[in-house]
Amino acid sequence: MWAMHPFDTATTLEPVAAGLVRGRTDAQWANMVGPFGGITAATMLGAIDRQPERTGEPVALTVNFAAPIDDGAFEIAAEPARTNRSNQHWIARLRQNGETRTTATALFGTRRDSWSDTEADPPPAPTPERVGPQKSSEFAPWLRNYDMRIADGAAPSDVSQASEDSTTTLWVRLTPGRILDHAALAALCDVFYPRIFLRRGRFVPAGTISLTVYFHADQRRLDAVGDDFVLGRARGNRFGGGFFDQSAMMWSRSGELLATTHQIVYFKG
Amino acid sequence: MWAMHPFDTATTLEPVAAGLVRGRTDAQWANMVGPFGGITAATMLGAIDRQPERTGEPVALTVNFAAPIDDGAFEIAAEPARTNRSNQHWIARLRQNGETRTTATALFGTRRDSWSDTEADPPPAPTPERVGPQKSSEFAPWLRNYDMRIADGAAPSDVSQASEDSTTTLWVRLTPGRILDHAALAALCDVFYPRIFLRRGRFVPAGTISLTVYFHADQRRLDAVGDDFVLGRARGNRFGGGFFDQSAMMWSRSGELLATTHQIVYFKG
Repeated sequence: MWAMHPFDTATTLEPVAAGLVRGRTDAQWANMVGPFGGITAATMLGAIDRQPERTGEPVALTVNFAAPIDDGAFEIAAEPARTNRSNQHWIARLRQNGETRTTATALFGTRRDSWSDTEADPPPAPTPERVGPQKSSEFAPWLRNYDMRIADGAAPSDVSQASEDSTTTLWVRLTPGRILDHAALAALCDVFYPRIFLRRGRFVPAGTISLTVYFHADQRRLDAVGDDFVLGRARGNRFGGGFFDQSAMMWSRSGELLATTHQIVYFKG
Repeated sequence: MWAMHPFDTATTLEPVAAGLVRGRTDAQWANMVGPFGGITAATMLGAIDRQPERTGEPVALTVNFAAPIDDGAFEIAAEPARTNRSNQHWIARLRQNGETRTTATALFGTRRDSWSDTEADPPPAPTPERVGPQKSSEFAPWLRNYDMRIADGAAPSDVSQASEDSTTTLWVRLTPGRILDHAALAALCDVFYPRIFLRRGRFVPAGTISLTVYFHADQRRLDAVGDDFVLGRARGNRFGGGFFDQSAMMWSRSGELLATTHQIVYFKG
């Protein structure tokens, strides 16, 4: 018997009309308030991806978490704002009860042969096998969908563990295993717990408000990763006024930079 | 006699209807094709800023350069997608001849007292006075609006100057002087010439497609900068498939992180 992967179940969309699809929240992907931001990002990207006018592959995605998504059905309207010869710009918005809950813009494009180089360096880390499996956090249900192996910068359990450095380095993959595509990679870009926890040595209310992903790999390169672990490193730059920003990079085990990702996060305390 | 600053002239918008303003390109801010992206980003932010429903100050801005803007008039439609207690999400689009040329999303918010720290370090650089004035590049008209003093990583003039490192560190301010606000800061975030030039040691066709700015300073902190130089450092992470990404930070002379900014750039060659 064939069963859909939980990631695909959660991001399932049915067409409603031209440029309009319907989805539904999934309790397995719940965060503390509303769904895990990564699954919402993947769903927004998926809503665009399945439009008949869509050309090319994802190159850039910005998702704005404007309001919590309630449990239940939602609709996503996706509109091609501009189609050029080699790229396409999209605007999408997720609505519930007539209210906008999430907005997004996305750039799809055709990658061409060009000079290439990865200037950034992958962070040093022991292999995921050496780090070993870790007990899934009880923080929120969505975490059970990932095998997350934190090599450095685990969430603090005590203020004595407050750190001067907000860096976390981790290996992560879906569990059960699933091949990597751009939607799954977009979701991986949001798996890091809020950097403010590490700085303060404790939980504080926090939530991502805007997430940007730059995809550096096409599907062929993602196919080479398969269902293997991806190495991520995230760090905050500036905390203040109730906001902080985070930048992260997502690497394949073989040292390919798959995505760079940035976000601005609201926090209290 | 009082004269408007060229930055303000270029970003002047007149109301047309609810949520709709009209602007016009300015030859002094022309880039090689269409206007300098920074002035377009500032104009998009300004279109939102002057809407009567707007609350709070800019926190995040993403601008997608979907198509070149032709010389002449344009319209910007700005819509508050969601208003929350302490923040507001906007969608804006710039149109010419009925075609979308630029899209944007923005987060405005109220900064609250919170724990604060700047984890990133400002790059070491000699003072702008020590770097000294530099001949304005003839590359494009908009460059004449800035006093740009490159401390490290000047544009190469010869392939023998191709570098393994795409970092540029520079001081920059508007000339003539003008106080810093969020619109002017957004524009500063786009002053770096394409990183690919430095890697290849030569000019190649390139253009920013999507730009994100996270503002870390409120107007009070920008007032403290006044019309002084801002220190920026930019670097590319991954070049390939005809795209590269750039991350940059903008600092005050006193070492305050004013903005972090990221972009994805199209290039040929």
